[in-house]
Amino acid sequence: MAERLTDEERGTALDQLAGWRLVEGRDAIARRFVFSGFVEAFGFMAQAALVAERMNHHPEWSNVYRTVEVTLSTHDAGGLTALDVALAAEMDRIAARMT
Amino acid sequence: MAERLTDEERGTALDQLAGWRLVEGRDAIARRFVFSGFVEAFGFMAQAALVAERMNHHPEWSNVYRTVEVTLSTHDAGGLTALDVALAAEMDRIAARMT
Repeated sequence: MAERLTDEERGTALDQLAGWRLVEGRDAIARRFVFSGFVEAFGFMAQAALVAERMNHHPEWSNVYRTVEVTLSTHDAGGLTALDVALAAEMDRIAARMT
Repeated sequence: MAERLTDEERGTALDQLAGWRLVEGRDAIARRFVFSGFVEAFGFMAQAALVAERMNHHPEWSNVYRTVEVTLSTHDAGGLTALDVALAAEMDRIAARMT
């Protein structure tokens, strides 16, 4: 099972994940992605859903038209783990390919 | 442009849409769909996204693992219209086929 990040690991991870922020009151990270329209936003979600399923690690996320708001945390571990950092990096790569 | 429902139309629509509720403080309707897992939940979203795009009317929605929470309102009209009722009915049909 994935273990929660140490403070040092957390700092390093956030330095590498530009655009992600710590969520207030929770051990989680979040990022808002904005695309050119709904097709692009849902296209991002479809790609990220396949990656998440492959990783067996799933996001909490919402979509309003061209915006996708993602929150990542590892429920089983009660906070941020390397799985969240890995999924965040994959989502960044998917979004970067789309712009 | 779609016009906001009258009180009578709103009542009739909600009677037909079992499982949907009025959102407090907003002229919108919402429903929580629960599926057997992430694949099923995202499968529902993928089907509903195609219908929404075809209708050019898009939901506000969030997904956490096997749960999809949907809110419908028509931004341009400032509230509920026939478009929301139609999209809600389509989502119900998609979900019904999956269970």
